[in-house]
Amino acid sequence: MRNVQVCLSPALFQYYDSTDRIIVVTDVLRATSAICIAFEHGVKSIIPVATIDEARQYRQMGYMAAAERNGIVQEGFEFGNSPFSYMTEQVKGQTIALTTTNGTQAIDIARDASKVIIGSFLNLSAVANWILQQNENVTILCSGWKNRFNLEDTLFAGALVDKLQGEIESTDYDDAALGALRLFNEAKGDLYGYLESSSHRHRMKRLELEKDVRFCLQFDITNVVPIIQGKHIVKAV
Amino acid sequence: MRNVQVCLSPALFQYYDSTDRIIVVTDVLRATSAICIAFEHGVKSIIPVATIDEARQYRQMGYMAAAERNGIVQEGFEFGNSPFSYMTEQVKGQTIALTTTNGTQAIDIARDASKVIIGSFLNLSAVANWILQQNENVTILCSGWKNRFNLEDTLFAGALVDKLQGEIESTDYDDAALGALRLFNEAKGDLYGYLESSSHRHRMKRLELEKDVRFCLQFDITNVVPIIQGKHIVKAV
Repeated sequence: MRNVQVCLSPALFQYYDSTDRIIVVTDVLRATSAICIAFEHGVKSIIPVATIDEARQYRQMGYMAAAERNGIVQEGFEFGNSPFSYMTEQVKGQTIALTTTNGTQAIDIARDASKVIIGSFLNLSAVANWILQQNENVTILCSGWKNRFNLEDTLFAGALVDKLQGEIESTDYDDAALGALRLFNEAKGDLYGYLESSSHRHRMKRLELEKDVRFCLQFDITNVVPIIQGKHIVKAV
Repeated sequence: MRNVQVCLSPALFQYYDSTDRIIVVTDVLRATSAICIAFEHGVKSIIPVATIDEARQYRQMGYMAAAERNGIVQEGFEFGNSPFSYMTEQVKGQTIALTTTNGTQAIDIARDASKVIIGSFLNLSAVANWILQQNENVTILCSGWKNRFNLEDTLFAGALVDKLQGEIESTDYDDAALGALRLFNEAKGDLYGYLESSSHRHRMKRLELEKDVRFCLQFDITNVVPIIQGKHIVKAV
């Protein structure tokens, strides 16, 4: 029997098994969505780093570097975590150092697990298909907002549980997976409307990132599955 | 504007504001349900303690003492956290030391806040009415299961948000409050059925605690509102 768990905050990750499992890290608005789009546009690898200082060091070494905090591109960096900023020929074949408010911290926490992949609505089916090809348990790690629960990552977790449960006959889901699935089933017809009242959407609205939000809430824009390999994120598929 | 937050695990409590707020601690199955019933049956005060050793020390000092771990009454104690065990004349006027797997740990984490009350479905309306009489922000703290998310405490949080939003005009809810509310609205017609597939219900089933579960999922059996006062839980109302 496969076991599927949802960890609703990076701060809870220590209470979940992480050895011999696939960890799917998500930060729907916007880090993991941006990562998927970067690979779709030919990025060679991404180095997720926890701090702005580390990103700056990579920049000084000649890498491209991206830094976002609280929704804003940090001074001295050309990229933040808007998916649109990666839709350019410039990134093709490049290695980019990336630090974001929540997403790269979550990746950092999960990185010792055997298989860590990057999920978003944009590559939902590709992630589900990749998981179905492995015979391993799964933990979906939501980045949340500064260690608090957020709705959009939970909805992605629910969407992935929904995909998996149609395909894997015998699976054991934890309570968070069941809750996430139920929320997704309620929301799936109109993710944007469902998130209208959520805290992060308000945050994004203040920053005029409506276009980014709408983009990140689309299903299956790309077939890439980014995976952690040592210090780098590369394309698994 | 009042602010209502839901903290889905004691391990996340440090990321929430806790000063100058009402904290409502819940552990539906079964610690906070049992505490409500104990006060309904005339208990004078409850001393929540984190460890079995501490409970034993109180017992040696002549107090009544209750200890539960993983659903089972611990050796050497007459009580665990079944609400039914407190429905006796024996407890009237008594002070009882209590330790449980999740609930008393959550109480322990919250105890430095200005006002900490105890909530369960059994005193839902009483808790809501008590909150409405104060002009303070609210954090609902779910005990979860060993720091992981659980559905039953989240449903209680949703039920309380539901009560409050009908009465408080201008309120700011965080994402966890919105998620909990939506799950509760889906579940409220049949809480027992909704929890059928949840992990804790399976645990309870294995331990043949069906009767306890059904009891704890009833609304408004009592009007007591237990509140933390120093080391003790006493009756606020």
